[in-house]
Amino acid sequence: MQIFEELESAVRSYSRGWPTIFEKAKGYKLWDIDGNMYIDFFAGAGALNYGHNHDTMQEKLIAYIQDDHIIHSLDMGTTPRKTFLETFHNTILKPRNLDYKIMFPGPTGTNTVESALKIARKVTGRDTVISFTNAFHGMTIGSLSVTGNSFKRHGAGVPLHHSVSMPYDKYVNDQDSIAYLERFLEDSGSGVALPAAIILETVQGEGGINAASIEWLQKIASICERWDILLIIDDVQAGCGRTGTFFSFEPAGIAPDIVCLSKSIGGIGLPMAITLIKPEYDQWGPGEHNGTFRGNNLAFIAATEALTAFWQDNTFSKSIIQKSKLVRQRIDRIIDKFPSLQGEARGRGLMQGIVIPEPNCASEICKAAFDIGLIVETSGPNDEVVKFLPPLIIDKEGINQGFDILEVSMEHVLKK
Amino acid sequence: MQIFEELESAVRSYSRGWPTIFEKAKGYKLWDIDGNMYIDFFAGAGALNYGHNHDTMQEKLIAYIQDDHIIHSLDMGTTPRKTFLETFHNTILKPRNLDYKIMFPGPTGTNTVESALKIARKVTGRDTVISFTNAFHGMTIGSLSVTGNSFKRHGAGVPLHHSVSMPYDKYVNDQDSIAYLERFLEDSGSGVALPAAIILETVQGEGGINAASIEWLQKIASICERWDILLIIDDVQAGCGRTGTFFSFEPAGIAPDIVCLSKSIGGIGLPMAITLIKPEYDQWGPGEHNGTFRGNNLAFIAATEALTAFWQDNTFSKSIIQKSKLVRQRIDRIIDKFPSLQGEARGRGLMQGIVIPEPNCASEICKAAFDIGLIVETSGPNDEVVKFLPPLIIDKEGINQGFDILEVSMEHVLKK
Amino acid sequence: MQIFEELESAVRSYSRGWPTIFEKAKGYKLWDIDGNMYIDFFAGAGALNYGHNHDTMQEKLIAYIQDDHIIHSLDMGTTPRKTFLETFHNTILKPRNLDYKIMFPGPTGTNTVESALKIARKVTGRDTVISFTNAFHGMTIGSLSVTGNSFKRHGAGVPLHHSVSMPYDKYVNDQDSIAYLERFLEDSGSGVALPAAIILETVQGEGGINAASIEWLQKIASICERWDILLIIDDVQAGCGRTGTFFSFEPAGIAPDIVCLSKSIGGIGLPMAITLIKPEYDQWGPGEHNGTFRGNNLAFIAATEALTAFWQDNTFSKSIIQKSKLVRQRIDRIIDKFPSLQGEARGRGLMQGIVIPEPNCASEICKAAFDIGLIVETSGPNDEVVKFLPPLIIDKEGINQGFDILEVSMEHVLKK
Amino acid sequence: MQIFEELESAVRSYSRGWPTIFEKAKGYKLWDIDGNMYIDFFAGAGALNYGHNHDTMQEKLIAYIQDDHIIHSLDMGTTPRKTFLETFHNTILKPRNLDYKIMFPGPTGTNTVESALKIARKVTGRDTVISFTNAFHGMTIGSLSVTGNSFKRHGAGVPLHHSVSMPYDKYVNDQDSIAYLERFLEDSGSGVALPAAIILETVQGEGGINAASIEWLQKIASICERWDILLIIDDVQAGCGRTGTFFSFEPAGIAPDIVCLSKSIGGIGLPMAITLIKPEYDQWGPGEHNGTFRGNNLAFIAATEALTAFWQDNTFSKSIIQKSKLVRQRIDRIIDKFPSLQGEARGRGLMQGIVIPEPNCASEICKAAFDIGLIVETSGPNDEVVKFLPPLIIDKEGINQGFDILEVSMEHVLKK
Repeated sequence: MQIFEELESAVRSYSRGWPTIFEKAKGYKLWDIDGNMYIDFFAGAGALNYGHNHDTMQEKLIAYIQDDHIIHSLDMGTTPRKTFLETFHNTILKPRNLDYKIMFPGPTGTNTVESALKIARKVTGRDTVISFTNAFHGMTIGSLSVTGNSFKRHGAGVPLHHSVSMPYDKYVNDQDSIAYLERFLEDSGSGVALPAAIILETVQGEGGINAASIEWLQKIASICERWDILLIIDDVQAGCGRTGTFFSFEPAGIAPDIVCLSKSIGGIGLPMAITLIKPEYDQWGPGEHNGTFRGNNLAFIAATEALTAFWQDNTFSKSIIQKSKLVRQRIDRIIDKFPSLQGEARGRGLMQGIVIPEPNCASEICKAAFDIGLIVETSGPNDEVVKFLPPLIIDKEGINQGFDILEVSMEHVLKK
Repeated sequence: MQIFEELESAVRSYSRGWPTIFEKAKGYKLWDIDGNMYIDFFAGAGALNYGHNHDTMQEKLIAYIQDDHIIHSLDMGTTPRKTFLETFHNTILKPRNLDYKIMFPGPTGTNTVESALKIARKVTGRDTVISFTNAFHGMTIGSLSVTGNSFKRHGAGVPLHHSVSMPYDKYVNDQDSIAYLERFLEDSGSGVALPAAIILETVQGEGGINAASIEWLQKIASICERWDILLIIDDVQAGCGRTGTFFSFEPAGIAPDIVCLSKSIGGIGLPMAITLIKPEYDQWGPGEHNGTFRGNNLAFIAATEALTAFWQDNTFSKSIIQKSKLVRQRIDRIIDKFPSLQGEARGRGLMQGIVIPEPNCASEICKAAFDIGLIVETSGPNDEVVKFLPPLIIDKEGINQGFDILEVSMEHVLKK
Repeated sequence: MQIFEELESAVRSYSRGWPTIFEKAKGYKLWDIDGNMYIDFFAGAGALNYGHNHDTMQEKLIAYIQDDHIIHSLDMGTTPRKTFLETFHNTILKPRNLDYKIMFPGPTGTNTVESALKIARKVTGRDTVISFTNAFHGMTIGSLSVTGNSFKRHGAGVPLHHSVSMPYDKYVNDQDSIAYLERFLEDSGSGVALPAAIILETVQGEGGINAASIEWLQKIASICERWDILLIIDDVQAGCGRTGTFFSFEPAGIAPDIVCLSKSIGGIGLPMAITLIKPEYDQWGPGEHNGTFRGNNLAFIAATEALTAFWQDNTFSKSIIQKSKLVRQRIDRIIDKFPSLQGEARGRGLMQGIVIPEPNCASEICKAAFDIGLIVETSGPNDEVVKFLPPLIIDKEGINQGFDILEVSMEHVLKK
Repeated sequence: MQIFEELESAVRSYSRGWPTIFEKAKGYKLWDIDGNMYIDFFAGAGALNYGHNHDTMQEKLIAYIQDDHIIHSLDMGTTPRKTFLETFHNTILKPRNLDYKIMFPGPTGTNTVESALKIARKVTGRDTVISFTNAFHGMTIGSLSVTGNSFKRHGAGVPLHHSVSMPYDKYVNDQDSIAYLERFLEDSGSGVALPAAIILETVQGEGGINAASIEWLQKIASICERWDILLIIDDVQAGCGRTGTFFSFEPAGIAPDIVCLSKSIGGIGLPMAITLIKPEYDQWGPGEHNGTFRGNNLAFIAATEALTAFWQDNTFSKSIIQKSKLVRQRIDRIIDKFPSLQGEARGRGLMQGIVIPEPNCASEICKAAFDIGLIVETSGPNDEVVKFLPPLIIDKEGINQGFDILEVSMEHVLKK
């Protein structure tokens, strides 16, 4: 590990909490160079919904490389780009009656968010974007301006503009955040201009596994419609099946104007992102937003395989719901078993967590869990949430194994 | 091609100029699905300096995938990350007497630039960054604010702040841009605050293949030192050997405070970027800048192989210089042969171009060249430059073949 | 009136609502050039608390001019400047146990606000300022950025930055705006940075005569103390006795860090403003904020006379309270008498109003009142409030006369 | 003087350099409370072009006050407002063939500048404004953003946006600032957007008495026309006859789109400002910019008297030119007489100065001059210019008396 300390920037973070060198991985398990095995409740921060090294994805990647196919193509036409477009359209959009133009904005989450903000501002001619408390949308200046975390925002080194932070669902006890938002919009003296867009995560992954209610999402969608505001759903972490449906907003029956996808869209953990835009808002000039790595063909190959292997019917979706119930049971059991933790369950689908109010306690539990074979991280403005984000392909055994380790870790921490 | 028109966003650009589907590629050649062969004078916009599908890179990638190694790791410790760090340190930094901490900021050019701007602002406590006319640093709001192109800037949808655009070398005829910059800095009434940093490309790839003179670079470095301003060199396109040395600034004998690398750092065209920061300025808090795809292990594998295969000694560097002379000869021959074009040579190393003042003429030449087998694009604020960016591994035959096609294309366009 | 239409800019406003040429004025009465008399319920938008043409102020002004004394002095030493400083210190600050340095920031309300924002940002090193919904602080870019009205904000022509708009007391039905503000401050993920200052009016004059409760003001003061945020009270309209005490915040028993005064501080309607700053925050460099007309000696003469004539003891203060009770009685009578107006009383002291929800109704009432001899204007984001701002020296007869006219006007409007 | 130190804010500046209490003033002379007489080469920072206490202005003010006329009227119709509009139109605009709507933006220089910036942005729909090095336009955030001085800018406490600073005439030795500006405008890759407006002072009063050449002004006007940019001339200090004609731009034969006037427009030193706007750009909504003190009737009275007494024909203008020649002769004599000062003459009309490169020397000369009876201040980013701004009504004797004192002061300082 000394190499990392000596040569790498102080900005590194995960290698501090999990101080080992990982070597191999398959499904929901990782192994380090000393042969230790770890259950994965982290899934590459949501980029590995289909687990590590999925067999057919591996095969297709290898075959593609072996045959001297195009690896890097910007937005030139290539076969994997074409096949991905067709597969995404036929497998995901069409069955859900969703009509979007597909944009490749560069292969990262922050890039899809930046492109979404740009096009929303362009088509409305307005500059303000409303985001929510504890939102996380990325680390480049545009995305950071709609992100809540003060440490991250401060890192910008400049004041962040053109955004207004509104209270997320259930932000202040007993206060109706929708009433609040509506009052600001309808009062021409509120100091908040009519925004170009409202951007939100249906479940806030970095902000503390806060899950908006279906009703709240529907009300936001209806506010957007009423005021002619574009609704952007950042489904970078909550999408690709994470909460039980391909898009996290499906249960609300809404159709956002713009959708941001990244992380698991690349199937096997390769950098990829897409921005979905309602055709009437796809008013880009050619090249008005671009990026060198928007044609990552290896990612297109794995992405297409993921859609084909998992999303042809609703079997996978159902299995996620099943497993998420088990996760909730294990969370409830923890809350019962360790009352002194004052734990509180949060989240939806396979994006759940436990809030533990005692400062540093959640972090210590994660540290202890790592020592005995579980990869799990914290979330929330004060790292107060233990966050469960296993690969969606995990089985019951894996979930139980992970939670067994977690309970041992909690006991260990509580003893101290 | 219809699929792209139907399903993809209007933002796509290259697939308009080169309307075909590319299938295979090796070295400096591409083939489309109809079997047409193309000489590559584009090199993935500079991301393919080592050519397409380099043999040992392919082998190492396949072996790595086959063995179920970690593909996606954020900034967790992995063997490829460790090996890359060591190789970059030993092969690149140490022999050049450069001392930098290596940061993985997310795998795109704009991400390394955003991280550079952030850390420069943090360590100086200042907000302004000076950039130059016709600079291109990326498309996210932070990078865009130091980019010159008005079409791209306008796409932001919001005013861009905290930056001042100063004249690049030779920007205004017979006027000394250094005297100008110094006057603004030394006059406390100039309206330009002491900046956190000056950011520049030594050769402006997107801005028109403008190459700063060595003397100009040295003067800028000395201004930075005198005023305690951080010098950021964005070597995303001009680095990794493109101008003849690994870093483009080596001939100037300067040591920038921060260096941005992306594009060809990933060896085979896979998304990757690094930010090099002088140790005294590496004042990041853990995770103060992050990103999901900053641990693209396939890219680390290919990157390490690139360093090992090409940069152990100066053979490769010398060969680039040789080939760049041939390119300049062919450019000079064109200027002589087609005086009506009023062509003017630009650039350095294998990053050269011809300015053709007549509107649209450069674009038409590129279009004609594509039809007969050459991939070459334009550059500059009015697309007035035909830009030659072949893979560095191209041979003399390839260069001559490409220029032969180009001359035919020019004849063709001039006839019209 | 044609001259104004022909020669003056379209920006003029009052001359549209009150289309006559005013000639003379004394106390609470005005006369136009046709000899029509008007009761003044407007008081020069709060700049004429002591009425028009106060006798001893007139005398002192004339004597000063006659004797060739200094009229314009920037911040040079002059006798009226000295006398004003002493009188303000002895008559206002000392008896209230308030310790402030007195700054002359230029002679307008917006100028004192701009100076307050600057010094708050300087001493804290923070950039954000929290203001409130329906706040009005002025029309220059700094003040406008903390003003709520969207029409005024839009007039800036640029996005307004470095400010966050929070809900004023009782802004959203049944929701506790203090809980809301506190949640945003204490949550490091709220997206709202720790501000340099909170700026507020205790009664919002332009925003609709919204009067904050004493309890709300105390809570805000305690939040400021807890978080080390500077509290700026903009007493430009509500100060100088308007709500019954010299400073409007006196009943709350709080001591703001910075106080902005203008309008009636100049006694007879002459341009003047001061900024009061707690000594520990008076960290200005000499001339760091300045302005040509910050030494308006005629205003200093009238200002000193106002302090001497009205504020040596609490007689004047008591009389304001008495008269404000009469105003409230007349308001209540209107609400009873005209139930169809659905009127609602607002305000405190001699800064009161009636909300009339029916669109345009309040404006029509004011128009009708003008025709029969009452000068009264609307307020609020939709001009939905009839606003009573008589000179504080008005007597009961004047108040009753004004309200009699108003009732007639209401009858007239309701008939239509 | 102790009172000022004890009670007044540290921001005060002139009372530091001229530590006395001024009591009386007439014409170009002032007297302090100890009976010392001072020649005035300062003229209230340009607000007293007609000298102190002009007889007929005094008379008219007194008569107006005595008759209980309206003193404060916002933008209501009053007789002095009407008379001023007519007089300004007939005496100033009509004879010069200038067609402007007259706006009363609030009574200070910074207020007219803020209003000019707003309307320029509104009518063009653009946000950037180009200003020049060493410009001074005011201290509120909008005006400060187009001001050059770093100390003043830093005082904002926030980054200043939406402005670009370009080199003023002769800013960099031997470099053509017009070529530079044009290059930035015509190159779509320059990083500088097409601006809403260019704002400038024809002679920079605070920035060091830099006088633009007539040719430079004409070129700027023609650039504005070519690019459809609004030209704003800030004539707050250089206007009202200061450089020999009523508007300082008259010799250039140009007609700016917007003109800012304040300072001496009020005749006797009373706060007043107007913004002149070409009718086609007067697109304000009613009240879109306003301010409590935009109806300062005493100022209107004195302003009208100033126009009537001085600007009915060109006698006054000719006399200013005559006196300015004498000032230049005395400056040239100083340069000859004190070669060690390395003085350099600057300016135009009665707005002239001597640059003295030796640090602090200009300040010491002004200090010494004060001690023996001359009020004169420095200017320029480093206070390196002794600035001569006598009242325009000064006679030859006064000028010579002032310069005699100055020469004695210089001898005194040079001895040290």
